[in-house]
Amino acid sequence: MKCKNKIGAQTVNISNSVKIISSATVAGTKEQQGKLKGSFDILMDDGYFGEKTWEKAESKMQREAAKCAVQKAGLSLTDIDMAFSGDLLNQCTGTGYGMRELQVPFYGLFGACSTMALSMSLGAMIIDGGFAKYTLCGTSSHFCSSEKQFRMPLAYGGQRPPTAQRTVTGSGMVVLSDDGNGPKVTQITTGKIIDKGIKDPANMGAAMAPAAFDTLKTHFKDTNKKPQDYDLIVTGDLGELGYEIVCDYMEKDGYDISNYNDCGRMIFEKSQDTHAGGSGCGCSALVLCASLLKKLKKGELNEILFVGTGALMSPLSTQQGESIPSIAHAVVISNKEVTK
Amino acid sequence: MKCKNKIGAQTVNISNSVKIISSATVAGTKEQQGKLKGSFDILMDDGYFGEKTWEKAESKMQREAAKCAVQKAGLSLTDIDMAFSGDLLNQCTGTGYGMRELQVPFYGLFGACSTMALSMSLGAMIIDGGFAKYTLCGTSSHFCSSEKQFRMPLAYGGQRPPTAQRTVTGSGMVVLSDDGNGPKVTQITTGKIIDKGIKDPANMGAAMAPAAFDTLKTHFKDTNKKPQDYDLIVTGDLGELGYEIVCDYMEKDGYDISNYNDCGRMIFEKSQDTHAGGSGCGCSALVLCASLLKKLKKGELNEILFVGTGALMSPLSTQQGESIPSIAHAVVISNKEVTK
Repeated sequence: MKCKNKIGAQTVNISNSVKIISSATVAGTKEQQGKLKGSFDILMDDGYFGEKTWEKAESKMQREAAKCAVQKAGLSLTDIDMAFSGDLLNQCTGTGYGMRELQVPFYGLFGACSTMALSMSLGAMIIDGGFAKYTLCGTSSHFCSSEKQFRMPLAYGGQRPPTAQRTVTGSGMVVLSDDGNGPKVTQITTGKIIDKGIKDPANMGAAMAPAAFDTLKTHFKDTNKKPQDYDLIVTGDLGELGYEIVCDYMEKDGYDISNYNDCGRMIFEKSQDTHAGGSGCGCSALVLCASLLKKLKKGELNEILFVGTGALMSPLSTQQGESIPSIAHAVVISNKEVTK
Repeated sequence: MKCKNKIGAQTVNISNSVKIISSATVAGTKEQQGKLKGSFDILMDDGYFGEKTWEKAESKMQREAAKCAVQKAGLSLTDIDMAFSGDLLNQCTGTGYGMRELQVPFYGLFGACSTMALSMSLGAMIIDGGFAKYTLCGTSSHFCSSEKQFRMPLAYGGQRPPTAQRTVTGSGMVVLSDDGNGPKVTQITTGKIIDKGIKDPANMGAAMAPAAFDTLKTHFKDTNKKPQDYDLIVTGDLGELGYEIVCDYMEKDGYDISNYNDCGRMIFEKSQDTHAGGSGCGCSALVLCASLLKKLKKGELNEILFVGTGALMSPLSTQQGESIPSIAHAVVISNKEVTK
């Protein structure tokens, strides 16, 4: 007896043409001035988004992105069979309070900044398995709620080292279905937790890069593909330093990865002085939903490998001297026909 | 086009005979003296479990429960296609650091005390969809790490109100497969987030009861079953007060629920003075793995409805005046043949 969709140690095929039929974004003010300027659906005027706290703002971001994605799919919330979402806040309250009003069957996730890929992986398998027709998948992060929780009070104005990334204020949501049109989710490589002993929470890129490398290598081995089979390989979000590390690793192993980039490098302009680039669950969510999916729809890209990367530590685990366990989940998004 | 396994608004069938082929538990000292005395696999000598901190102890609990479950299934860790787990700690570090050494493809979840049912729901659907042959599903909680994070420093010795429950120190893990023997996961009802405005985090039973009620009602409607079709309906973990509320709701709606109990009432002895009973992700995990699955195997129970309940708030959301959003996921576990 074997699994009909499993094609390698960590990789499965999605065989029933599961499509990304819509996507939507909510973006913060700094993100609106970055490289993706003009490509977001809902624009925040400030970090509060009409709410009293940053945390409530983050919940509203998920809620509004979700409603917008569902509307763009020509659906109503009652059409959604299951939603998959998570975020970085303690007890994932960005998600819990965000999803509360939507009244859709809901599975909560925690994958730190890998959540966009994590939610789409599960959402696609669940449809392919015949358990849902429409799944809503997404995540959020907020610069202010993250800084407050993970780092320093914002008002303190602490200096950040050059390796630090800036948490993106944004939410991205997609609707998946085996009905309708859009780029397809065709393969998924589920990551293992990798920890190479990096302990500096201001250097997440270095902590997560080995997880990205592990999942990339596994994906190419499982699928018998090479990097150049994709128009773009994109991790998210390792930032400048993590990107360099992945490049080094891959090149040393003989891979040509001239078509590789990282979402942390694709959201802010250099002039915006975010140090090593963007981070947070919202980073890869915004890059995917505001840019990559649109390029896939227009045919500017035909097939991409989207690799969400997450660092699974907490401030407490850092205080207790622990290193940073990381994970990366890979999703193939393609305009090509599904190979059975 | 419709979903082949969806049978109602929130309910799906697992049609390929997915079995719980093994389970394992790690239990704390107080739990060892409770109603499930003598039925745990791994016994902790104290809250530290050989580690330096309670949080590291909790990670070890998950790791040891996982290894034990895999061993009892006659497998090795490399046989596990995917693991699904989560916990209550900030950024789910009990899970992240627990799973790190296992080196299995891993999906992180956050469902608070609903996590056992949540992990089994996803683990079963993923096997049924042909994406995995063996999934590892489970969770943990630890009285000390929870008190410290959610409530008061333990040394402070704060008084707890009668409505408060005691977080269970324990981890439960199951291995699911379409191969092998054991009770089957046959149906799943995915919960929606329900929030009736309860704001008291020392009264989680009252906060979660409406979510349990909503999922129970939906399950009976979706499946056209009645409570008496099950040998046991068990929620986890509402405690004494939440149990009473669900009884009231169900009786008012005309359901005979004489076969209903709650995991929060099934773990500690009255004499152990835990007020409203047990709570925490580990509560329903221990009751399921140490007691219910064994009764199913022996034929003392033939079919049960296992309903994990979780409260999705954080200390911060409480401080910000928010009420407690809750969720309940229902899993049918049965010795009967699967109805196609």
